[in-house]
Amino acid sequence: MQAKTAKESLTVLTDIVLPGETNPLNNLFGGELLARMDRAASISARRHCNQIVVTASVNHVAFNKAVPLGSVVSVKAKVTRAFKTSMEVFIDVWVEDTATGEKLKANEGIYTFVAVDHTGKPTTFVPEVIPETEIEKERFDAALRRKQLSLLLAGKIKPNDASELKALFD
Amino acid sequence: MQAKTAKESLTVLTDIVLPGETNPLNNLFGGELLARMDRAASISARRHCNQIVVTASVNHVAFNKAVPLGSVVSVKAKVTRAFKTSMEVFIDVWVEDTATGEKLKANEGIYTFVAVDHTGKPTTFVPEVIPETEIEKERFDAALRRKQLSLLLAGKIKPNDASELKALFD
Amino acid sequence: MQAKTAKESLTVLTDIVLPGETNPLNNLFGGELLARMDRAASISARRHCNQIVVTASVNHVAFNKAVPLGSVVSVKAKVTRAFKTSMEVFIDVWVEDTATGEKLKANEGIYTFVAVDHTGKPTTFVPEVIPETEIEKERFDAALRRKQLSLLLAGKIKPNDASELKALFD
Amino acid sequence: MQAKTAKESLTVLTDIVLPGETNPLNNLFGGELLARMDRAASISARRHCNQIVVTASVNHVAFNKAVPLGSVVSVKAKVTRAFKTSMEVFIDVWVEDTATGEKLKANEGIYTFVAVDHTGKPTTFVPEVIPETEIEKERFDAALRRKQLSLLLAGKIKPNDASELKALFD
Amino acid sequence: MQAKTAKESLTVLTDIVLPGETNPLNNLFGGELLARMDRAASISARRHCNQIVVTASVNHVAFNKAVPLGSVVSVKAKVTRAFKTSMEVFIDVWVEDTATGEKLKANEGIYTFVAVDHTGKPTTFVPEVIPETEIEKERFDAALRRKQLSLLLAGKIKPNDASELKALFD
Amino acid sequence: MQAKTAKESLTVLTDIVLPGETNPLNNLFGGELLARMDRAASISARRHCNQIVVTASVNHVAFNKAVPLGSVVSVKAKVTRAFKTSMEVFIDVWVEDTATGEKLKANEGIYTFVAVDHTGKPTTFVPEVIPETEIEKERFDAALRRKQLSLLLAGKIKPNDASELKALFD
Repeated sequence: MQAKTAKESLTVLTDIVLPGETNPLNNLFGGELLARMDRAASISARRHCNQIVVTASVNHVAFNKAVPLGSVVSVKAKVTRAFKTSMEVFIDVWVEDTATGEKLKANEGIYTFVAVDHTGKPTTFVPEVIPETEIEKERFDAALRRKQLSLLLAGKIKPNDASELKALFD
Repeated sequence: MQAKTAKESLTVLTDIVLPGETNPLNNLFGGELLARMDRAASISARRHCNQIVVTASVNHVAFNKAVPLGSVVSVKAKVTRAFKTSMEVFIDVWVEDTATGEKLKANEGIYTFVAVDHTGKPTTFVPEVIPETEIEKERFDAALRRKQLSLLLAGKIKPNDASELKALFD
Repeated sequence: MQAKTAKESLTVLTDIVLPGETNPLNNLFGGELLARMDRAASISARRHCNQIVVTASVNHVAFNKAVPLGSVVSVKAKVTRAFKTSMEVFIDVWVEDTATGEKLKANEGIYTFVAVDHTGKPTTFVPEVIPETEIEKERFDAALRRKQLSLLLAGKIKPNDASELKALFD
Repeated sequence: MQAKTAKESLTVLTDIVLPGETNPLNNLFGGELLARMDRAASISARRHCNQIVVTASVNHVAFNKAVPLGSVVSVKAKVTRAFKTSMEVFIDVWVEDTATGEKLKANEGIYTFVAVDHTGKPTTFVPEVIPETEIEKERFDAALRRKQLSLLLAGKIKPNDASELKALFD
Repeated sequence: MQAKTAKESLTVLTDIVLPGETNPLNNLFGGELLARMDRAASISARRHCNQIVVTASVNHVAFNKAVPLGSVVSVKAKVTRAFKTSMEVFIDVWVEDTATGEKLKANEGIYTFVAVDHTGKPTTFVPEVIPETEIEKERFDAALRRKQLSLLLAGKIKPNDASELKALFD
Repeated sequence: MQAKTAKESLTVLTDIVLPGETNPLNNLFGGELLARMDRAASISARRHCNQIVVTASVNHVAFNKAVPLGSVVSVKAKVTRAFKTSMEVFIDVWVEDTATGEKLKANEGIYTFVAVDHTGKPTTFVPEVIPETEIEKERFDAALRRKQLSLLLAGKIKPNDASELKALFD
C-alpha cells in the first residue's frame, strides 16, 4: 500500500454560521462546531485511506475565540499520521472578517478515525503519511507522543513504555 | 476601488450527503444542493466585495448527475464578473468516489448577488474582476451575454441593444 | 396518455419563516427559499405525471423582495408545459402581511423536472398540459421559447433552429 | 370587529416526508406531524385575527394512518370558532398516493390559539367565525361542547354549567 | 406478562431551547415542544413494553407558560396506565431558571401509544402498570375516565357505558 | 460562594437516534453525538455555577460502541471539579436495547466550560465541587492531573511543575 502526502487529504469546509447554530451569546455553539469539524475530518481520513471511516476519539479541541452569527468559517482538515488501522487528523478552524478580508485562527482540534469495512469491522489497509512542510512534520512527530499518552491514560501501556512522553520529564 | 482576481474569491465547501438531505431515490435532494450552492456562492461574493450580499437571482443550474447518500460533495464558487452593484458567481459541483479518489462533475450553476448595506439597500462599491485562466476569461465574456439576455427577457432592454446576444443570430 | 389541465397540478406550500432559515439581515435565506420552491415544484410535477421526478434544472429565479423572519410565505407551483419526459414548473412566491391580510409577490422561479422510474432512468409517459387561463396560456407559449434557449445555450441546437427565439431579433 | 367566514382562514401546507423526519418503521414521526400541524394551524389563526398568536392547547389529535417516507402530505387548517381571545382550529391531514392521485385522510387534530400583543399578553380583538358549509357548522357547534369539556376537566366550571355536554348524558 | 411500576418508564429529556426552535416572540415554538414531548413519551412507552411503539393520539396538551430562547427545558414522561395494546403516557415539562436554580412547570400533556411489530401491526403484549405514588395513582384512575371519554367522543361506546364519566354528572 | 455536590449538576438527555443523524453505516454520526454531549454538559455546568457558560475545550472523547439508528441514547453529564472560572464536566453515554431493557456504555467524554457574563468575559464565581461517591472522588482527583497535562501540552507550565503527572513516571 503506497504512502501518501499529508496534502492529498486536505479538506476545506467553508460555510456560514446560521442563526439555528448559535448559543445565547449569539456565537456558534461549541457542539455545532464539533460536528462540522467531525464531518470535515472524516472526509480527510476517507480521502487518505479510500475506505469508510468512523470516529474513534476526539483527542483535544481548544476553543480560543468566539465565532459570531453570520461569520464565514473555514474548517481545514489534514491527516497527520497513520497507525495500522487508525489515522490522526488535525483540524484548523479559521474565522474570516469579510469586511476586511482578515482571517483569524478560532480553534483547532485533533480527532482519530478508524478505517472499517461495510460491516463496521476495522480493516488494516491504511497507507502511511508523508509529511512535507515544517508544520506537517512537527505534527507527524507529536502524533506519536499523543498516541502513547492516549494508550498510557487508557492503561494499555506502562509509563516506561511511553518513551516519547517520558522524555519530557527527564 | 481596486480590481481583484477571480481566484481571490474562490470558496470551497466540501461536505457529506447526510440521510436527512436525500430524496426517495436516496440521492441528494435538488433543493438541498441549491441551498448549499447558495451558501458557498454568497461567501464567494462577500469575499470579492467585502460587504454583505443578498441573492438577486439564480440564472441557471443544470443537474447532470445524481449524488448518492454518503457521497463527498465539493461545491466550488468563484466570482466571474462584476456589474456596478451586482456580481455573477459560477459554481461547479464535484462528487468524489472516495473508494477510488475519482472526481466527477455533478452539476454547475450561475447565481447573481447584490452588495447591500445593513438596511438592505444596494451599495455601489463592487470592485471589478480580473480573469486570469482560460476558463475564467471565457466565463467573464459569457457573463455579459447572460446579463443582456436577462435584461432582454425582463423587458429592460430591446433586442437590438443586446449586441452580444444578437450576434449569435447573425 | 390523457392530457391534464395545468390547474390539476397546483401545489400550495404555506409556511412560516423560522429563525433557523434567516440571513444576517434577518430575512429568509435565498438558499432556503430555493429548497422550499424545489419541494413544492417537485410535488406539482409528481401530481402531473403520477411518477417519481427529479430536478433537471433551475431555469430562472428572481428574488425581488426580502422576506422577513416570521413572515407567512405561500409557495404556489403549477406545471406549465410538458416535453416528452420533462415538465416545466412555474413557481410564484407570495408573502403575506398577516396584520393587514395584504399579499405581495416576493419572487418567482422556473424549474424543470424529469419523470424517472425506480432506478432513476427517464420514462416517457408524461401527459400533455392543457392551459386554461390567460396566464397559463402565456406561460405555456413562453415555455417553448425557454426550452429552445436552453438547448441553444447548451449547444444542442443551432441558432437558426431556435425559431421561436430567433423571431425576437427579426 | 367584523366577523369572517371560516373559509378565509384556510391554510394549506403541502410538503414531502423527508428521510430526516421518519421513525424506525420509515413512517413520518408523530412529533414531526404535530409540529407541521401547529405551523399550519397558527397561520390559519393569524389570518383570522390579523394578530400574533401562540398555541394555548392541543385538544385532540388522532393518528389513524401511517404516513410513509416520500409521501406527499397536505395539512389543511381552518378556524372553527372564536371565543373572546382564543380560536379553535381544526386540522385535516391528507396523504396522497401520487402514483394514482388518490388522497386518503391520515389524521385530524384540534388546536387552540390565543391572540397576543408583542409582549405576549392576550388581546381581546378576535372576530367571530361565520361557518358556511355543513361541516363548518357541525364543527362550530361541537367547538362549544369541547370548550365546556375543557373547562370542566380543568375544574373551571361545574358539571351542571356544562349544558352542552350534560345533554349528552340525559 | 409481568406488570411494571410506573417509575420504571420514567424518561428525562433535558435540553436547551435553540434559536432555530423559536417563534416571533423568541419563545419555544409550540410545535417544537410537541415534537420533543412525543420523542420523550415514545421512549417511555418503549421502555414499558419493550417493543416498537407508534403515536396513536395526543389527548391533551396545555401550554401554560412561554419558554424563552436559551432556557433549559426538562421533559419528563412516565406511563400512567396500559390498555391491551395501548399505553397512556403523561408528560410534565419544566423550565429552569439557571441563574437561580428555580424550576417552574411550563406545561403538561397526555399522549397515547400503541405497541406494534415490525410490520406496524398492533401486538397484544403490553404489561400492566403499577402506580406507586399518590400522583401516579391519581393519574392511573383518571386514565380510565379519559379512555372512556375518548371512546365516547369517537362514537365507539354509548354515554351510558361511560360509567366513570357519567358519574361526574350525577 | 457555597460549594455544591457533584450530584446537583446531574443532567440527563435521553433521546432517539433519528435518520437525519446517521452515517453511511446507519449508526449515529460521531459529530452529532459530540453536539448532544456538548448541550448536556453545558446545562450541567450552568446548573453548577448558575451562570452562562461557553465550551472552552474538549479534553477527550472515546467512541467505543456504534449507536444504531432508532436507538435510545442517554447522555448523562456531571461536573467533576471546578477551577477558578472553569469547570470540568464528565459525560457518560448509554445505549439502551429497548427490546431487553439492557443498557450498555457507548462512550464517554470530558469537556471544559468557562463561566462568562453577558459580554462573554470570564467571571470568577464558580463554586467548588463536593464529590460524594467513589467514582465522583476518583474523577475529582483525575481532573487535576488532566488540568496539569493540558497546561503542560499548551506550554503554560513546565514538566517539573506538573507534580501530579510527573509522579506517574517516577
